[in-house]
Amino acid sequence: MSSNTREKILKVGARAVHKKGFNGTGIQEILTAAGVPKGSFYFYFDSKEDFGLQLVDYYSDTIFARAGKILEDESMKPLDRLRKYFVGFFDIYEKNNFAYGCPIGNLSLEMADINKKFQEKLSRVFKRLKTVVTGCLDQARAEGDLPENIDPGDMADFFISSWEGALLQMKATKDPNLGKVFDRFMFEGLLAKRQ
Amino acid sequence: MSSNTREKILKVGARAVHKKGFNGTGIQEILTAAGVPKGSFYFYFDSKEDFGLQLVDYYSDTIFARAGKILEDESMKPLDRLRKYFVGFFDIYEKNNFAYGCPIGNLSLEMADINKKFQEKLSRVFKRLKTVVTGCLDQARAEGDLPENIDPGDMADFFISSWEGALLQMKATKDPNLGKVFDRFMFEGLLAKRQ
Repeated sequence: MSSNTREKILKVGARAVHKKGFNGTGIQEILTAAGVPKGSFYFYFDSKEDFGLQLVDYYSDTIFARAGKILEDESMKPLDRLRKYFVGFFDIYEKNNFAYGCPIGNLSLEMADINKKFQEKLSRVFKRLKTVVTGCLDQARAEGDLPENIDPGDMADFFISSWEGALLQMKATKDPNLGKVFDRFMFEGLLAKRQ
Repeated sequence: MSSNTREKILKVGARAVHKKGFNGTGIQEILTAAGVPKGSFYFYFDSKEDFGLQLVDYYSDTIFARAGKILEDESMKPLDRLRKYFVGFFDIYEKNNFAYGCPIGNLSLEMADINKKFQEKLSRVFKRLKTVVTGCLDQARAEGDLPENIDPGDMADFFISSWEGALLQMKATKDPNLGKVFDRFMFEGLLAKRQ
């Protein structure tokens, strides 16, 4: 079996779990959609739980690939990078009628209470994202673009959780205003330097 | 059958779904925990979906009972009410090791993409909460306690979604800092009147 089989299962599974949640997705439907026999699944994954945990890595790789490209792009000012990465996502999200959202946020709500391995793995993804966002804010501070009273680590926490919350609420309300007010209160409010 | 049976099923179901999600909870386990025969379930609920939709009303009744008591308590200043209701919840949440969170947020992520009836019902809960929070902010404005540049409806949107996001992220990271920074950036940042 080629390692492409593992990739194919993860790719098809990622789409299904992103849409229907981990508990709402059956192994069999993933295998059928991927055109892969059941034996292959258990060759690569010990159990559905193991598959789910590897899925967190799969999502996380995708997220940090995009994050790295934008949030570490030195040709832009640090706050412009943050705005492009996070606020830019709201536009993509609106085009999909606010479906799916952040797979890490989804799995956190679904799995963190009932499975400690998921909780710990998801927590590490948030901590890594916090590190990247804090790095951007540190750089903004070094360039004199951050208000004095803002602690970069605390702002990274608030920034990420508020963004997750906007995605969550838009999934229910389909109201693009939630993305617009995130943008405005963050970048024209808290992160704007007062003259 | 007494209408207490319906209440009992909803109460036991609410706890289970709050913890394990709607798809992760089986009807049979609710009935066993409630000590109710299967026939009773289908006397009160047409289907699991119907049960879930009635559960949204059940959660919503609990939420707005607490919200009404605090957010419409005229003995406190409007912004103090908001702080007591939303930030106060983080303390309760921390005592439970950040488990469960907001049932409306949880069901939004789990169900909004896959079931339009859930999505519409959950959207109405968020809109009702926005109305209550906007009312508080309108009153703060009338009393001269809101910064001039803050639109109450937009702030209500940002406030609720950021709060949902903090709960979500704390579920994974178990980090109380997310609640503290929500409090600080909201009440000492955006909502504070500059002298």
